Amino acid sequence: MDKETFERGLEIRKSVLGAEFVEKAINSADDFNRPLQELVTEYCWGAVWGRDELPRKTRSMLNLAMISILNRPHELRTHIKGALTNGVTRDEIREIFMQVAIYAGAPAGVDSFRIAREVFAELDKG
Amino acid sequence: MDKETFERGLEIRKSVLGAEFVEKAINSADDFNRPLQELVTEYCWGAVWGRDELPRKTRSMLNLAMISILNRPHELRTHIKGALTNGVTRDEIREIFMQVAIYAGAPAGVDSFRIAREVFAELDKG
Amino acid sequence: MDKETFERGLEIRKSVLGAEFVEKAINSADDFNRPLQELVTEYCWGAVWGRDELPRKTRSMLNLAMISILNRPHELRTHIKGALTNGVTRDEIREIFMQVAIYAGAPAGVDSFRIAREVFAELDKG
Amino acid sequence: MDKETFERGLEIRKSVLGAEFVEKAINSADDFNRPLQELVTEYCWGAVWGRDELPRKTRSMLNLAMISILNRPHELRTHIKGALTNGVTRDEIREIFMQVAIYAGAPAGVDSFRIAREVFAELDKG
Amino acid sequence: MDKETFERGLEIRKSVLGAEFVEKAINSADDFNRPLQELVTEYCWGAVWGRDELPRKTRSMLNLAMISILNRPHELRTHIKGALTNGVTRDEIREIFMQVAIYAGAPAGVDSFRIAREVFAELDKG
Amino acid sequence: MDKETFERGLEIRKSVLGAEFVEKAINSADDFNRPLQELVTEYCWGAVWGRDELPRKTRSMLNLAMISILNRPHELRTHIKGALTNGVTRDEIREIFMQVAIYAGAPAGVDSFRIAREVFAELDKG
Repeated sequence: MDKETFERGLEIRKSVLGAEFVEKAINSADDFNRPLQELVTEYCWGAVWGRDELPRKTRSMLNLAMISILNRPHELRTHIKGALTNGVTRDEIREIFMQVAIYAGAPAGVDSFRIAREVFAELDKG
Repeated sequence: MDKETFERGLEIRKSVLGAEFVEKAINSADDFNRPLQELVTEYCWGAVWGRDELPRKTRSMLNLAMISILNRPHELRTHIKGALTNGVTRDEIREIFMQVAIYAGAPAGVDSFRIAREVFAELDKG
Repeated sequence: MDKETFERGLEIRKSVLGAEFVEKAINSADDFNRPLQELVTEYCWGAVWGRDELPRKTRSMLNLAMISILNRPHELRTHIKGALTNGVTRDEIREIFMQVAIYAGAPAGVDSFRIAREVFAELDKG
Repeated sequence: MDKETFERGLEIRKSVLGAEFVEKAINSADDFNRPLQELVTEYCWGAVWGRDELPRKTRSMLNLAMISILNRPHELRTHIKGALTNGVTRDEIREIFMQVAIYAGAPAGVDSFRIAREVFAELDKG
Repeated sequence: MDKETFERGLEIRKSVLGAEFVEKAINSADDFNRPLQELVTEYCWGAVWGRDELPRKTRSMLNLAMISILNRPHELRTHIKGALTNGVTRDEIREIFMQVAIYAGAPAGVDSFRIAREVFAELDKG
Repeated sequence: MDKETFERGLEIRKSVLGAEFVEKAINSADDFNRPLQELVTEYCWGAVWGRDELPRKTRSMLNLAMISILNRPHELRTHIKGALTNGVTRDEIREIFMQVAIYAGAPAGVDSFRIAREVFAELDKG
C-alpha cells in the first residue's frame, strides 16, 4: 500500500461521502472485507479521485451516469448524495439521467429517476 | 414537444399499462421528473409504440425479452402486466423467458421466472 | 445427449441458418469446440427452438432484440439472415431495432441498423 | 429430455445447493415454470456441471465471478452457499471478488462483498 | 415529428459531429433507416442535447463515459471527435477513461484508451 | 505510486503476458496513456494479482470467464495467451467457455470459442 495515496484517498472519500459514513464502513470492516476497503480507498479515491485534472463536481457527474448504467442501486444512492455534496444540483442530476435515458435506454432512466427521488425524499425529511 | 405524438403516446401508454397507473405517475410528477415523464410518453409510447408496423402484442413480447436482459425488475413487473393486457398469454411469457435463459444465461432466466410468478400471484389474489 | 432432441435441433438449426452454414460449422469442429456445437444444437435449437409454443418467426424477432442488446455482432449477422428466412420482413427488422434504440439506448440502435444494412447489402449483391 | 443427463444433473444440483432447497424448487414448480426447472437441471447441472473436466470447486469459483458481473443478487446468494459447500473458503471468495472489483469495476466488487457478508452472517447465526 | 425540435437537433448534431458527417448520414438514409435517423436527430439531439441545463462540453464528457461502458466502439469514435469539438481536451478524455477503468473495470478502460489513441493518431495525420 | 507494488506488478504482468509484449506497451506509452499503464500495472497486477491467496492459474481462469462476459475481445485474446502461460490447458479453456455459454448465454459462449480458436491457430502457426 502507498500510505500517502491511501491517506489522500481517505480524506477525499470522507469529504465526498461523509466522515461518519466512511468511518463506519472502515471500522466495521473485518478480515474478510478489509482488503476491499483498503483497495477502494487507495485506488478509487486516492489514485483516481485524487488526480487534480478534473474537478470533483465533474467526477461526481460522470459517476452518476456510469453507476446508473452499471445498474448498482446501492452505490447509486451513495453517489447521488456525494454528488449533492460536490455541488451537483438536483436540476443537473435530472439532466444526467435524461441523457442516460436516451443513451442507455428508457428503463435505465426511469430506474435512476426513481432512486434519485427516494434519496431526495429521505434528505428532505431530514 | 410534438403535442400530437405526446397525446398518442399517452393514450397508448394508458391502454397498455392502465389509465390509473399512468395518471398516478403523471400527477405525482414534480419539476424534477416531469421532463422524464414527458420524454418517455412522447418518445417511447408515441414515437415508437405509436408506429403501426408491429402489433402491440409483438412489441410487448420484445419488451419482456429486452427488459429481462437489461435487468430492471421494476420495469419488468410493469411490462409483464402490460403484456398480459396486450394479449400475451402466460404460456407465451414462459416461452420468452425460456429463450432468455438460453441466449442471456440461466440466471437471467431464473430471475425473470421468479418475477413473473410474483406478478401472477399478485394478480391471482386480486 | 438426447439423440432425438439433438436431431430435432439439427434440423431446425439447418432450416433457419442454412444447411450449408450449419454443416460447415459442424464439420469444421475439432475436439476443442465439438462439445459446444453439440450443446448449442441440442439445447438452443432442440430443447428451446424445438418447442412448439412460439412460431419460429416470433423466436427470430426475440433473438434480434436480445442479441442486439447482448452486443454480439457476429451472432447478430447470423440471426438477421435467419430472421429473413423465418419470414421476418426488413420493415419488421427496422421496427425491432427502433424499439431497441428506445429501450437499450441510441448506440445499441445505431449499431444494429448499421449491421443490418451491411447484411442486406451483402444479400442484395447476391 | 435425456433422462440420464437430467438425473445426473439433479444429483449434482442437490449436492451443491442442498437437497432440501432443490426439492422445494422442484416440488413447488407449476406448469408455468416446470419447463425451466427441467431445462436448468438437465442443461446447467447435467450437461455442463456434469462434465468431469473441471473440479466442482473450480466451477463454483467461476460462477461467483460470473454471477457477480451478471448482477443477479438472488443467484449470487445461492451460489455463494454452493461454493462453500464445494470447498471454496471465505478467503478465496474474498480474492474472487477483489478480482471482480478490478476487472468489472469497484461497484460490482462492493456489491458482491456486501452480499457475501450478508450470507456469512446468516450462516453464522445458524 | 416536432419540426422545431428536429431542426434544433439537426443543427446541434451538425455542430457537434460535423456538418459533412451528418449530411452524409442523412442523405444516404433509405426507407429502412430513415426513421432511425429522424428519431435520433429529434430525440437525442433535439429533445435532450437541446436542453440548456447542461453545457455541451459536459454532455460530451458524460457521453464518453457512458458509451465506453456501453461498449460501442463505433459510436465511441464518433463521440470522441465530437467531444474535442465541444472543448473537451485530450487530458480530460484521459481522466474520464481513468475513471471508467476504476468504475467499470480495467478492460473497459484499456479498450477506451486504445480507441482514443487511434482517433488521435488519425486526427494528427490530418 | 507505491514503488514496491508497481515493481511487483510489472514482474507479474511480464511473466503472465510476456516481457516483450509488456515492454512494448510501456515503452510506447505517451503522456496520454502512461497514467493508465501505471494504474493497471500497480493495481491490477501488483495489488490484486500480487496477492498470494489464489494461484495464478486460478486467477487466469477467473479472468477468462469475466472478460468473456465483459465482451472485450482484445483483452480476451491477451488473457487466453496469458492463461496458457499460467498452465491453463486448452481443455480447461473449453470447459470455462462451456460454462460461460450456460451462465451468460449461447452468444457469449460462441464468440469466446471463436476467439479462442483464432488464438490457438495463430499460436500453432508459430
